[in-house]
Amino acid sequence: MTGRFIVVEGIEGAGKSTCISVIEEVLKEHGIRNIEYTREPGGTAIAEKLRTILLEKGDEKVSDETELLLMYASRVQLVDNRIRPALEKDCYVIGDRHDLSSVAYQGGGRGISLDLIKGLKKMVLGDFKPDLTVLMDVTPEIGLSRVDNRGQGRDRFESEKLEFFTRVRNCYLSEASSDPSIKVIDATQPLEQVKQSVRTVLEDFLCSRG
Amino acid sequence: MTGRFIVVEGIEGAGKSTCISVIEEVLKEHGIRNIEYTREPGGTAIAEKLRTILLEKGDEKVSDETELLLMYASRVQLVDNRIRPALEKDCYVIGDRHDLSSVAYQGGGRGISLDLIKGLKKMVLGDFKPDLTVLMDVTPEIGLSRVDNRGQGRDRFESEKLEFFTRVRNCYLSEASSDPSIKVIDATQPLEQVKQSVRTVLEDFLCSRG
Repeated sequence: MTGRFIVVEGIEGAGKSTCISVIEEVLKEHGIRNIEYTREPGGTAIAEKLRTILLEKGDEKVSDETELLLMYASRVQLVDNRIRPALEKDCYVIGDRHDLSSVAYQGGGRGISLDLIKGLKKMVLGDFKPDLTVLMDVTPEIGLSRVDNRGQGRDRFESEKLEFFTRVRNCYLSEASSDPSIKVIDATQPLEQVKQSVRTVLEDFLCSRG
Repeated sequence: MTGRFIVVEGIEGAGKSTCISVIEEVLKEHGIRNIEYTREPGGTAIAEKLRTILLEKGDEKVSDETELLLMYASRVQLVDNRIRPALEKDCYVIGDRHDLSSVAYQGGGRGISLDLIKGLKKMVLGDFKPDLTVLMDVTPEIGLSRVDNRGQGRDRFESEKLEFFTRVRNCYLSEASSDPSIKVIDATQPLEQVKQSVRTVLEDFLCSRG
């Protein structure tokens, strides 16, 4: 496989969409035209059905373990049906979230053991991992205020308390500190500086990969 | 918890419904009125949505690992929302399939490692297990011919080849040989004898539990 899998991560309102646009721009400047976009949970017919179950606020409580299992079920469908086939065709795949979200949200946020999550990941996806992860970092206060300013209401995750997102953010940063393929962007900077930071990360990545 | 969880297992067409009726009859003869019925996958609003995804024959292939994860997601919802609460209220719960189905179908049938399945089970459900499992045993030839005689068409599992069900059956029997809480019924016997065999297993169980 000569394609590349680039993932954008971060809590709600961190600026993932902006980051994805910049990545797309830089790739195109480098003459890369074969780009596929994915989002998680979701991205295939079955995975989107699981996304609906995961995000909707219904009467039945979704157990933490169920949430974890559904995230991975969605991820396996996406990797098998879209990401791997795209990489095999030398595509660049830009993912709006991937495995690190489960570590941060179901691990950091819900409190499921990280060993358990990483064991499950290994079970169902083996060594598959992104080539680059761009982590958009903001405080939950800023992130959630941006979500509310969109005026679309909050989904099941966005409805969690501030402390939940503080744990998610801390877990993201802790993972980034030990994995050099995760690059942290200070997403509280002014927009143009955020864009420039993403651009620099991408240029470095493309340069190092040749 | 003083309730009891009794599970009926077996391949398609093995006579699980007949078995459940006999169990219900015997429990009632013993004055047991608090009985809950479950089926897997399914049994809660969310679990039934997962059942639909698991059983329908769509265009998108369900990966073996996805199938396993969805089975456990459904099971966790059912155990947390219905089975445990019922057992805590001293109910008898009669389950149409439970964990052993994943061992037999996703393990024996699909070829996923039994260690992996049992590891996953331990991760998300701990030591929870049925008090009694009644395994209705028939050859796949007999079982599938009974399914076809119902005239309702075959779902995604029922559409598997004979060899798939042979592997499932062998796995069921192998598990039963090492777990004394699984009782095997020869479901190829004439109906009255099958019923009598189930009755004997139940009477023994109730007698031993006092």
